[in-house]
Amino acid sequence: MRPSRRATDEMRAVSFERGVLRHAEGSCLVKFGETHVLVAATLEERLPPWLKGQGRGWVTAEYGMLPRATHERTRREVTAGKPSGRTQEIQRLIGRSLRAVVDLQKLGERQITVDCDVIQADGGTRTASVTGAWIALHDCLSWMKTRGMLPTIPLRDHIAAVSCGIVDGEPRLDLDYAEDSDAETDCNFVMTGAGGFVEIQGTAEKTPFTEGEFNAMVGLARKGVTKLVDLQKLAVA
Amino acid sequence: MRPSRRATDEMRAVSFERGVLRHAEGSCLVKFGETHVLVAATLEERLPPWLKGQGRGWVTAEYGMLPRATHERTRREVTAGKPSGRTQEIQRLIGRSLRAVVDLQKLGERQITVDCDVIQADGGTRTASVTGAWIALHDCLSWMKTRGMLPTIPLRDHIAAVSCGIVDGEPRLDLDYAEDSDAETDCNFVMTGAGGFVEIQGTAEKTPFTEGEFNAMVGLARKGVTKLVDLQKLAVA
Amino acid sequence: MRPSRRATDEMRAVSFERGVLRHAEGSCLVKFGETHVLVAATLEERLPPWLKGQGRGWVTAEYGMLPRATHERTRREVTAGKPSGRTQEIQRLIGRSLRAVVDLQKLGERQITVDCDVIQADGGTRTASVTGAWIALHDCLSWMKTRGMLPTIPLRDHIAAVSCGIVDGEPRLDLDYAEDSDAETDCNFVMTGAGGFVEIQGTAEKTPFTEGEFNAMVGLARKGVTKLVDLQKLAVA
Amino acid sequence: MRPSRRATDEMRAVSFERGVLRHAEGSCLVKFGETHVLVAATLEERLPPWLKGQGRGWVTAEYGMLPRATHERTRREVTAGKPSGRTQEIQRLIGRSLRAVVDLQKLGERQITVDCDVIQADGGTRTASVTGAWIALHDCLSWMKTRGMLPTIPLRDHIAAVSCGIVDGEPRLDLDYAEDSDAETDCNFVMTGAGGFVEIQGTAEKTPFTEGEFNAMVGLARKGVTKLVDLQKLAVA
Amino acid sequence: MRPSRRATDEMRAVSFERGVLRHAEGSCLVKFGETHVLVAATLEERLPPWLKGQGRGWVTAEYGMLPRATHERTRREVTAGKPSGRTQEIQRLIGRSLRAVVDLQKLGERQITVDCDVIQADGGTRTASVTGAWIALHDCLSWMKTRGMLPTIPLRDHIAAVSCGIVDGEPRLDLDYAEDSDAETDCNFVMTGAGGFVEIQGTAEKTPFTEGEFNAMVGLARKGVTKLVDLQKLAVA
Amino acid sequence: MRPSRRATDEMRAVSFERGVLRHAEGSCLVKFGETHVLVAATLEERLPPWLKGQGRGWVTAEYGMLPRATHERTRREVTAGKPSGRTQEIQRLIGRSLRAVVDLQKLGERQITVDCDVIQADGGTRTASVTGAWIALHDCLSWMKTRGMLPTIPLRDHIAAVSCGIVDGEPRLDLDYAEDSDAETDCNFVMTGAGGFVEIQGTAEKTPFTEGEFNAMVGLARKGVTKLVDLQKLAVA
Repeated sequence: MRPSRRATDEMRAVSFERGVLRHAEGSCLVKFGETHVLVAATLEERLPPWLKGQGRGWVTAEYGMLPRATHERTRREVTAGKPSGRTQEIQRLIGRSLRAVVDLQKLGERQITVDCDVIQADGGTRTASVTGAWIALHDCLSWMKTRGMLPTIPLRDHIAAVSCGIVDGEPRLDLDYAEDSDAETDCNFVMTGAGGFVEIQGTAEKTPFTEGEFNAMVGLARKGVTKLVDLQKLAVA
Repeated sequence: MRPSRRATDEMRAVSFERGVLRHAEGSCLVKFGETHVLVAATLEERLPPWLKGQGRGWVTAEYGMLPRATHERTRREVTAGKPSGRTQEIQRLIGRSLRAVVDLQKLGERQITVDCDVIQADGGTRTASVTGAWIALHDCLSWMKTRGMLPTIPLRDHIAAVSCGIVDGEPRLDLDYAEDSDAETDCNFVMTGAGGFVEIQGTAEKTPFTEGEFNAMVGLARKGVTKLVDLQKLAVA
Repeated sequence: MRPSRRATDEMRAVSFERGVLRHAEGSCLVKFGETHVLVAATLEERLPPWLKGQGRGWVTAEYGMLPRATHERTRREVTAGKPSGRTQEIQRLIGRSLRAVVDLQKLGERQITVDCDVIQADGGTRTASVTGAWIALHDCLSWMKTRGMLPTIPLRDHIAAVSCGIVDGEPRLDLDYAEDSDAETDCNFVMTGAGGFVEIQGTAEKTPFTEGEFNAMVGLARKGVTKLVDLQKLAVA
Repeated sequence: MRPSRRATDEMRAVSFERGVLRHAEGSCLVKFGETHVLVAATLEERLPPWLKGQGRGWVTAEYGMLPRATHERTRREVTAGKPSGRTQEIQRLIGRSLRAVVDLQKLGERQITVDCDVIQADGGTRTASVTGAWIALHDCLSWMKTRGMLPTIPLRDHIAAVSCGIVDGEPRLDLDYAEDSDAETDCNFVMTGAGGFVEIQGTAEKTPFTEGEFNAMVGLARKGVTKLVDLQKLAVA
Repeated sequence: MRPSRRATDEMRAVSFERGVLRHAEGSCLVKFGETHVLVAATLEERLPPWLKGQGRGWVTAEYGMLPRATHERTRREVTAGKPSGRTQEIQRLIGRSLRAVVDLQKLGERQITVDCDVIQADGGTRTASVTGAWIALHDCLSWMKTRGMLPTIPLRDHIAAVSCGIVDGEPRLDLDYAEDSDAETDCNFVMTGAGGFVEIQGTAEKTPFTEGEFNAMVGLARKGVTKLVDLQKLAVA
Repeated sequence: MRPSRRATDEMRAVSFERGVLRHAEGSCLVKFGETHVLVAATLEERLPPWLKGQGRGWVTAEYGMLPRATHERTRREVTAGKPSGRTQEIQRLIGRSLRAVVDLQKLGERQITVDCDVIQADGGTRTASVTGAWIALHDCLSWMKTRGMLPTIPLRDHIAAVSCGIVDGEPRLDLDYAEDSDAETDCNFVMTGAGGFVEIQGTAEKTPFTEGEFNAMVGLARKGVTKLVDLQKLAVA
């Protein structure tokens, strides 16, 4: 029995609240159960220096966590003077995932920065971030289209992410904190609406995993992402 | 006429939502109009090194702002590698204000850290932070009392804060961003429930202010703080 | 009785020694009793990026303290890698105070940086800095006028600063270190020669202060600043 | 045809030169073709603070790259003042991989730090690092056993790593720089001698990859790791 | 003819003003012509961690320069976040020079930090610092002896330093800024009262120097140091 | 008897291996006995900002040490966030030494960066670095000449460096680590092929040294540099 009494292939309750920030061009409060991430998409008419003059735009992401999002208070990263390796790894993952479905040529010479700030953490903050980031990015692009800055929304597909793990020898979908800290193996999958893989990150926390276990997790991930994409479609409909 | 159509002595709509964070010992989402600050109070059984073994506790505060709380996106402070002078000034102000009404002897050798994170900014983030911080601190102390860690809540009084300014030659209460960026003078007042002053910070942004103008702002501040304290009482009743 | 045997409304001995640095366009060694601050004004034909091309200049300030200015040696800020919150707060205060009386349009597209370095500290380093900075700035502008770079000195008024406090329940003018570390309340006032307020910073260190106490401090501050401005006039005559 | 004229399932020439550093307890110069990594294992009789007194040891890794290991000179990380996100990601990967096969209980309260410094880079620096790190770690543990510090070498298995990619639509083993910068998909696999997975990192650089493509890469990786483990066995025999 | 009209073997006017800082255990304002350095010696009853429990003390030095000590304003080192290579090189030189004549055993488990802060610079700031630092250190040790903390002053000899250079092909003693920036070769000599060498730093700024030129500089340095030591003796007599 | 059984005027075995790095325009693995330094010269078509538009080039150097080059592992400088004073001192020395023999006018508006990374340390890393850097710089300039970027190699002379010391009262040439850590005096000499001095750095580690001792070290250094320059000539012949 999972701590949350969910079936092994059952996601937590997922919700998207759009337009929660007054100033942002696109924003979304995404919840995967008790994991809550506030996502803001910002349009800027500037580009990183290495991209100037190439006729295409850029989408990047930053990730943060409020100090008391966690069970114990976490020290602010500014106190350490630099983002942790974990933070950098996650924000690079979010950025790559979004860029996989944006047509940067059609975006034009502009940058969209997607900020994912974890308000409350209960496992899966990176997968919730990727999934909510797609909504905020979509709404930012839609804002631009409404203002005539873009003829169409330059998104080729949906992007959503989910974690799977092996806990007590059993493959499970969408781990919460209690399961995550106990898992033998932890995998994150980023997939498109069409079912293609954009990112797979699997780590054996305790014992190496087998090809069979991995394939079982792939199957669960596919099921979870399908559901997340359906919910994204409902949200932006 | 003020941009918000308020009377010169009229505060914005103020609200406190308690218990918004699952993990924190005390928490509060405070709103002064469109300024929204998420406050979390964390109890820790440790002390800063210079305070150890003196039989008393400590209350400190940290302040942050999400990148897209503002009209234009603000760069994360971790990117610069250190908190700005403004951030440090504000978090020291919040800490001093709270300590003015806590009995640190009765708290015992423990530290409470109050994190004030601005979700959305529309002027007055430091005054909203101080005012909401009192609620989160109260609830953290109450949590401790419930668990038998304290016989009573060691708070001597309420603390609340409000800004006043001279805009178009007219003293006004509780400036929003539109007024704040246009004010000749900007003053912040931190006061106790009993009406004592804990902090006064007045700055002439354009032309020096007179003793008469200052006294008019003191009167407005008193009115605003009285209202804030009444709302705090309702909130924790 | 004050530790220094001064009357409650009596300033310490104040002196200005002009032209103490061979290379600076304006310089001044200001003493408020045993508090000694070396001030240097530097003219540079450049501007901060955000001010370029607007036809006006800029005046800014930096503040530092030699390691053994204090009773105990203080670690150099460069060792910590960043200026402390206190340093940043003070240098922003000095800069704002000076800009309140300079006509930046008439200065033209140039920057004057005023460095205030505390050689010896005995309370009131920020108020001595502001007061001496006006002299160094005046002399820098005068140096420019002599060389035909300015038709007149673009200063609208004097600026001087003084601290007041409540010590043993008694309002007192110009606290030295012994009083400052013992004060219930500590207020800094920055005022113009015409008697306008540019900055008020009041903090209750122990117990909240009343409106009556605050007004008593305002009266003392007015008296102190009047004296400082008279001494500035004598110094630059 | 691959730029290196290799078959799609053919690794580059791999070699291990042991004992290349006079001072290190274990060391190895590992070459995957033109990618050369110098690995040093250091034994220290100390532990990270959070691990003290638990009766077990720790294995950690650091990763660096000489400025002219690359085609264009790369700025030293010390100049930026902090390790890049990429560096942190790689050194965490190496450390996790090694810990998956070390019996930390049997190691006792000691730390082994494995430094992987890239002398010359031509793609696959992280996989060469993991594979060579196993040799240096083995030799460090063997050094300890020889001196009676350990009864046996507390290694449960081999660890080796290899990259695979989809280039021009074709799954290929062990990408060099020319292929890596051109790949549609890039996957790194860390596996044990027994064939278990310790880490899978797959990223679609251009277009999402399918489950079929992924499975083809898994097959290639298994082949490559088998060869690497054979070579490790020869090297330490 | 030298810019200062001095003979080639003539030092600038040298003076030591002792006891200039109220709080320091020893202090000295040293002037080599227009180069002015404020030196403060601080006694602390603590030691660097690596020296604890060895029954001997430590003498260290720090060096700084006020921003407008120089012709053009120099940026504060705290702004860059770290001391420059030049600063570190000079403060290590001062520390080594002082330790060469202190009996650290007799000092006991205490640390003396000697801060050398350049108020005004006109060449030779490091040699003036070393020479003045000896005075401040002497006075700090004398202060300790007076208070019964030491039976005698644990100084084995004097230490003084002077620069020499080749300018226009001519060896010259004690270069000022005008000569220093024009010199072909610049050498700094640190010597004891007994005539032993503690430090020699010679650099060809333009063309390599010969053994004959170097020996001529050694002769000048010996003459200069003899004079400086005589002046130190007068100062502390 | 020296620990290495060398005569007092005998250098360690010295060798230069050229072209060891595939990507660098010039490279060299230099060995002074067990001290091994990998040197890479990089040509870049850019200049430091302060040198632009003056029609001449620049040669600079950076120095690093792999963590396990030393007997005990040394922490990476990036972990401390800044290069140590020692590192900065050495890299400035290497850069000055090379510039003493390069005709920067003839180099044209380009920069050559010479990276010296210590693979293994056994005393004398800075002298080995300077000596090997000349080879890498030569080969970089030769590479440019071959490609028609320069009509001739703009080097005026050789540069080589060697350390001398007083150990057990005896002047010795080319100290290794065992002697260096035990020396009373340690001197580094940088000289040209023609026998001119470019840099002399002498430090009394224990007791001051005499003029006679210094002259004995100068004689040894001359002998050592003569040999090093002969070996350089053989290497590039």
